[in-house]
Order: sequence, then structure tokens, then C-alpha cells
Amino acid sequence: MNLVLIEPGELRPDGTARIEGSRARHLRMVIGVTIGQEVRVGVVDGASGVGVVRAVEDDGIWIECRVSAEVPPLPPIDLLLALPRPKVLQRLWAQLAAIGVGRIVITNAERVERNYFDTHVLEPSTYRPLFIEGLQQAKDTRVPVVSVHRRFRVLVEDELDGLCPQRARLAGQPGIGVSPLAIAAEAGRVRERLLIAVGPEGGWNDFELRLLTAHGFQLVSLGPRSLRTDTACLALMAIVQEGWRNASGESSGH
Amino acid sequence: MNLVLIEPGELRPDGTARIEGSRARHLRMVIGVTIGQEVRVGVVDGASGVGVVRAVEDDGIWIECRVSAEVPPLPPIDLLLALPRPKVLQRLWAQLAAIGVGRIVITNAERVERNYFDTHVLEPSTYRPLFIEGLQQAKDTRVPVVSVHRRFRVLVEDELDGLCPQRARLAGQPGIGVSPLAIAAEAGRVRERLLIAVGPEGGWNDFELRLLTAHGFQLVSLGPRSLRTDTACLALMAIVQEGWRNASGESSGH
Repeated sequence: MNLVLIEPGELRPDGTARIEGSRARHLRMVIGVTIGQEVRVGVVDGASGVGVVRAVEDDGIWIECRVSAEVPPLPPIDLLLALPRPKVLQRLWAQLAAIGVGRIVITNAERVERNYFDTHVLEPSTYRPLFIEGLQQAKDTRVPVVSVHRRFRVLVEDELDGLCPQRARLAGQPGIGVSPLAIAAEAGRVRERLLIAVGPEGGWNDFELRLLTAHGFQLVSLGPRSLRTDTACLALMAIVQEGWRNASGESSGH
Repeated sequence: MNLVLIEPGELRPDGTARIEGSRARHLRMVIGVTIGQEVRVGVVDGASGVGVVRAVEDDGIWIECRVSAEVPPLPPIDLLLALPRPKVLQRLWAQLAAIGVGRIVITNAERVERNYFDTHVLEPSTYRPLFIEGLQQAKDTRVPVVSVHRRFRVLVEDELDGLCPQRARLAGQPGIGVSPLAIAAEAGRVRERLLIAVGPEGGWNDFELRLLTAHGFQLVSLGPRSLRTDTACLALMAIVQEGWRNASGESSGH
């Protein structure tokens, strides 16, 4: 935990907050905070800053927070993700938030098993704590926004432009397509956000590919090696983000 | 499993092989192969090609293999890795082989717990089957070579040049350093292999950083987000590999 995330409702008008639950346990047991110690804090979907520990209780920790006025920008990537196996998605949530993503649009595809949609892994009560965990690792405050769309065609034709208005769009498809680096760099230079589509195990089918390319997606590939869906998704996001960041002129440091 | 890896000892002079164990189970139960079906095959550390299923038995599958004469090149990356927690390393083995790495040099560092070295996760009987799993996913045949070095300074000063003679070297350090993309592209243009150093949770200490930079490592960072060691390692490898491949002019397809 590199930053303690505080829910807006936990922050009192005087700037103090009482942290409970797993965050408090982690601060007490793993970091071993003491009174007067400074910790990095952030308000969920808000600014970050520095907190000073004012009291350590068995079931809670009082922190006096000084946060800046500036809310961090959204990560430069949104993700259109064909619903993976629930076990894989469960493993992905925290890492997606850590790598950085503004919006996650979950969709159907021919090669997605229908019963995957019944999983509790798609419920906010499952993914929100995992997002918080990933954001506390990455020192970010912006919680990814998730929506679930069972009709791929309706999503791409009617809904996607409203959800993700950016024109820079790329779709990963094993074995087809160009390197994502040039597209990421082009978007980074003008600081335009990107939308990345990641298909199911086995890839998008021909109809889905045609629909995606008709709606502005360029096909990209990471070369001849086939990766597990979750590894491929994180690899593609990391590559696009680095290409974007490098071209945007943002510093590599803190 | 996108390729069936066959141990050299399993391949008979007439080109047939009897596949047993988990590979046979996967072919029978998951892929459901039938007699006459073609499957992609490869010989461990050798060439790949096409196999034809000749018999399906309860505990083994006969495949007639036609492999090319050409052994695939080593992946362009070697990895110098400060020993992570055993649980993390266990999770990493298959994914390192899938993303692609020639040699994995495991080392000590100040922030590595000493008892990590006692783990069975460092034994070939643990990691070799996981490498085979990752290679079968990625359709590669080259098994990463692992060596373990408990003395960091001796390794870097006396042994590393012999293990990894390449001059293109970069070390990841959170918050310090440039983007790895330019270095990867420079090496890719001349098809020079790279060595990537990934430190422990919390990063390399000052002494270790000085020793690494004195031995040709350039410090790189993936920006302000802190990632879990395993995510950071895979992200850095994916980024460097993509930058290398893109600059080397290798096609993105198969």
C-alpha cells in the first residue's frame, strides 16, 4: 500500500478521517504506523496529499489529511474487454486499476461462454475493493468506471461513442495487425486518450472484427507469441501506456 | 496449449513420438484430438513443425512429427531478477517463458529476504514444467536457462559478462530513469539482445544501483505508478520486447 485511499464520506470537514477495516489493519500490522508518522493519502476520485497519524486504535486509525486541490487526470486508456473467465477477471481487477484505466466496458463476443455473465465477479461489491487495492498500490485515486453490455453489436453501433468518445481506437487480435506503438505515440503527442479492445480467448470472430474496424478500431498484434488473455491484456495496456506517455513528454519519475 | 512440446528423448528416429502425462490428457480431454488430426508440435530447444495424431490411447498419444530444420532464435531479452517472494516467483515462471526470455539470472539484493533462497520454487523440478506450459502457450521451443547467484556483487563484477555478454542493459527502478522504449528500439535496430534487471519489492538500494550503472545498466522507469513486482516485471519485458521487435522490422504476425 503506497497510498491510503479515503472515501469522501470518511473525510470530516476539519480534514481528519478515521480509517477502518483492511486499510487500518495494513497500516497497523504491516507498515506499523505510529503517532505523528506521515503517510501518503488520497480521496477516492479526488486529490492526494499527505496525512499525519493522530491516533492508533484497535479497530481504526485517525489521520489528519492535507490534500491538494488538484484531482489527478484519468489514465490515458479505456478498455473494451470481452468478458474473460470469472477466475481470470477476478485476478485482473486489481491489476487493471494498478496499471491505470479510466473506463472498463465489459462485453459479449461469440467466444465468450454465456454463463460467464452470471458471475459475482461482475458485481461492484467484488471489484470495487480490488480496484481500491490496485489504486493504493499505484498511488492513484481514480476508480475505473465499469459497465456491462451483453449485446456486442448494440454496444459498438449505438453506445460506445457515448461511453468512449475518443477516436484513437485499437483492437488486439493475435497474429493480425501492426505494432500498437506508433498508434499510442501518435495519440500521446496530442494527449488524446485511447480505447483498447481486448477479445476473448481465441480472439474476435470475423463479424466482430469487421464491426470493430468499421467503428474506427485499428488491429494490433504483439507478435507471434500467444499469451494468456490476462497477460496479453496487461501487456498491451502497458505497451500502449508507455508509448503514449513517452510521446506525451510526461516525465518518467514521480 | 498452442503447440505440443516433445522432449528430444521422446522423438524416435522414424519421427514418431509417444506423448504422455499432462500433455496427453490436455490433447485428449480439452482439445479432443482424433486420429488423423494435425497439431502444431515442437522439440524442446529445437525446431517446430506439424504433427499428425496416429493413435489415441488412455495414457498416451502417438504423433508423427514433421519438424523443420530451423531452431527458432532466442527471445531478445535476458532477465536479471532479484529473487521475489516464492509465491510471486511461482506465479511468474510460466508467464516469463510465455512472454519470452533467453536466460534468467536470479540474484540476491538487500531487500530480498534471506530465507527466500530455501524455497523449492528455485528447483528445476518446479520451474521446468511451468516453462513447458508457458512455451506451449506461446508456441516457442526455447526453454529459459536459470542460474541462481546469492552474491550480488560477485555476480555483477565477475560473472555477469560471461552469462550475458550483451552491452544493451537496463535496470528498472521505480521513479528514477528514462523510458525503456528508446533503448529497446536502439537495440532492436541492430538486433542486439538486451539484459533487463528487475529489483526487489521496494527497489534496488543505492549500492546496488551504483554497481549496476557502473556495469553498463541504464536506469529506466515506467512512470509514476507503482506496480506489484510481478506486474512490473512482465510490463517492462513486454514494453522492451515490443520496442525491440518494432524497431527490428520483424513482422507482427505469425
